[in-house]
Amino acid sequence: MAVLTCTLCGNQYPSDRLQTVCPEDGRPLRVDLDLGPGSMLKEALRDREPTMWRYREALPSCDPISLGEGFTPLHHAPRLGSRWYVKDEGVNPTASFKARGMSAAVSMAKHLGATKLAVPSAGNAGGALAAYAAKAGLEAHVFMPADTPRACIVEAMTHGADVRLIDGLINDCAAEIGKLKDAEGWFDMSTLKEPYRAEGKKTMGYELAEQMDWRLPDVVIYPTGGGTGLVGMEKAFDEMERMDWIGPERPRMVAVQAVGCAPIVTAFEKGERFADLFPNAHTAASGLRVPRAVGDFIMLDFIRATHGTALTVTDEEMIAAAREIARTTGIFAAPEGGATLAAARRLQSQGWLKEDDVVVLFNTGSGVKYLEALSA
Amino acid sequence: MAVLTCTLCGNQYPSDRLQTVCPEDGRPLRVDLDLGPGSMLKEALRDREPTMWRYREALPSCDPISLGEGFTPLHHAPRLGSRWYVKDEGVNPTASFKARGMSAAVSMAKHLGATKLAVPSAGNAGGALAAYAAKAGLEAHVFMPADTPRACIVEAMTHGADVRLIDGLINDCAAEIGKLKDAEGWFDMSTLKEPYRAEGKKTMGYELAEQMDWRLPDVVIYPTGGGTGLVGMEKAFDEMERMDWIGPERPRMVAVQAVGCAPIVTAFEKGERFADLFPNAHTAASGLRVPRAVGDFIMLDFIRATHGTALTVTDEEMIAAAREIARTTGIFAAPEGGATLAAARRLQSQGWLKEDDVVVLFNTGSGVKYLEALSA
Ligand SMILES: Cc1ncc(COP(=O)(O)O)c(C=O)c1O
Ligand SMILES: Cc1ncc(COP(=O)(O)O)c(C=O)c1O
Ligand SMILES: [Zn+2]
Ligand SMILES: [Zn+2]
Repeated sequence: MAVLTCTLCGNQYPSDRLQTVCPEDGRPLRVDLDLGPGSMLKEALRDREPTMWRYREALPSCDPISLGEGFTPLHHAPRLGSRWYVKDEGVNPTASFKARGMSAAVSMAKHLGATKLAVPSAGNAGGALAAYAAKAGLEAHVFMPADTPRACIVEAMTHGADVRLIDGLINDCAAEIGKLKDAEGWFDMSTLKEPYRAEGKKTMGYELAEQMDWRLPDVVIYPTGGGTGLVGMEKAFDEMERMDWIGPERPRMVAVQAVGCAPIVTAFEKGERFADLFPNAHTAASGLRVPRAVGDFIMLDFIRATHGTALTVTDEEMIAAAREIARTTGIFAAPEGGATLAAARRLQSQGWLKEDDVVVLFNTGSGVKYLEALSA
Repeated sequence: MAVLTCTLCGNQYPSDRLQTVCPEDGRPLRVDLDLGPGSMLKEALRDREPTMWRYREALPSCDPISLGEGFTPLHHAPRLGSRWYVKDEGVNPTASFKARGMSAAVSMAKHLGATKLAVPSAGNAGGALAAYAAKAGLEAHVFMPADTPRACIVEAMTHGADVRLIDGLINDCAAEIGKLKDAEGWFDMSTLKEPYRAEGKKTMGYELAEQMDWRLPDVVIYPTGGGTGLVGMEKAFDEMERMDWIGPERPRMVAVQAVGCAPIVTAFEKGERFADLFPNAHTAASGLRVPRAVGDFIMLDFIRATHGTALTVTDEEMIAAAREIARTTGIFAAPEGGATLAAARRLQSQGWLKEDDVVVLFNTGSGVKYLEALSA
């Protein structure tokens, strides 16, 4: 049975019941698995389904609520850069990588007895929770900013979720849920406030390794909001090293944020480990409109440990770059995906990216969910 | 080298150059492959990529222009019917099954030297052509009705296609292309007017067999517009039988159309082999807004040969059913997908579907492309 360890103070908690954050310090709990050489065999993957559940020994042990998420294509994109790749998360169910986290978290929430799930969402997570809760036969309560892209709102409603549009940002949505959840009996599915969304997201790291024939790229560029993807990939790399699947080398991890909402970049530049609330957050990349992240120090430690970096791009840059991806690769990138290309171009012109670096850009969602931003 | 055979008169044409329809009668050309036992081994599939190109011996021999299309999940949907399944084509690149046809057809068009591709589209095909042409580095000219769902229009434009919005239906779009194509040097990618879109679509039939462990379902319910999917699946079943992968049994094939656009259903009911132009076509399921289909007789023959049927549903029925799919399976179904469930319910209440029939519903696209219809 896995143990849950606080990512900040190291306290441990049992995993046989629903858990949220560390009661001591309010920080995320990590699922510590007992993995070593032989726990899972690369060779076994050959006969596994093309979803994230192919890595089942490293995933929560429960009946998966699955819509076929994960094992998304990693496309070589030579017209962007000779050794550049795009990991296309837009072809997941629910058209974003949020499907991974919700598949794992809804599966475990159901397994541990939750029946009413609530989430504050910048957009895609709400649609994903609604879909997986529908499949699981559980209630979903989705709180989103009123100006969330319409696709995510209609998606959540169509799946039968109770959708509440809040005049504010994702942290205001979280505060609303905080007020209601005890009285309503809701389980809070906020990113990194329960342990299993990160477990789902970590499969992006497993796939990178498998799809690149067990050699990680030199650089990974990731559009960073709550940071679950970065937190998950760090864990995946460590687990794979413990299983002898990869060596100790790590890609330089790059966090991209929007000029209008850059708490992690600000903390990175100031040399700090914890990020302040970013005031007046705004950006067309709704997934990046996350002014405060409870996993800030995990991301910042990881970026520094890998000699990565963190930078901002403007909305204009990310949308122009999303179009460039669409025109040169055939991938209908979200603004968040565009942000990674805009960042790569900047890092290239600064010489931070070398000519022969193998670079992976994460297109975390499909542009089809961002008609407002992309048709402006 | 494959030979192209006219589906109506049987004349043969070489496949080493760009071909459109039979010059004798204007009917579709079929790609006749020399397949027999041993041409492709089921066992070889084990090590193949999870895309439609895993069936490569049965696909055009050329460099695939691929975005990872196909090998979509087949979900058991016990809350709809005990032995009912939904094939979720909405998780394809471009969020519809049109990706399959365009991947095959753009690959071959490029291979045979075309540089400027044009298509009339009810929506999804235009988005898909734009994406695959972008990846291939070819020009795309997409003609769509002005009231096509906005997602498809923005998608095609974002991929850099020349998008022209026509005051009319898909056949009016086709007429416009007909007027311009010679002067502009465009190759016409209309469904069934070049031989390879059907080749891509046929992979749905291969996947059904592989995913059901080589036993086809009793019934397949398919939302029918141009009919390429039906035409393709018939061919896939025949090819698999020739390779000894399946026996001679066929599912009863069911074509669903909208009350507002039902040329195939009308012909089916009249006992005719060719369908008339359906007047004043209208339906919220834009993919079903196809008033005339050049492959009408192929579909009608296939439906009759398999003891299938053809029926209409109203827009209200299909949208309510799309919501039911979304709420019970977690799949964000398009109205076209909803149409298959509405049809299944009707056939069930008529006793045409038996309690123990294994039924596959084709959700041909994602609801995310139909915000207008689904939020109404
Ligand atoms: C498309 C998209 N990209 C990126 C992010 C940020 O992801 P993470 O929480 O892993 O930092 C989100 C979160 O909402 C998103 O929806
Ligand atoms: C979502 C969707 N379903 C069904 C159809 C009809 O497909 P077919 O041409 O194979 O009959 C279309 C065609 O545009 C479509 O876009
Ligand atoms: Zn703690
Ligand atoms: Zn002919």
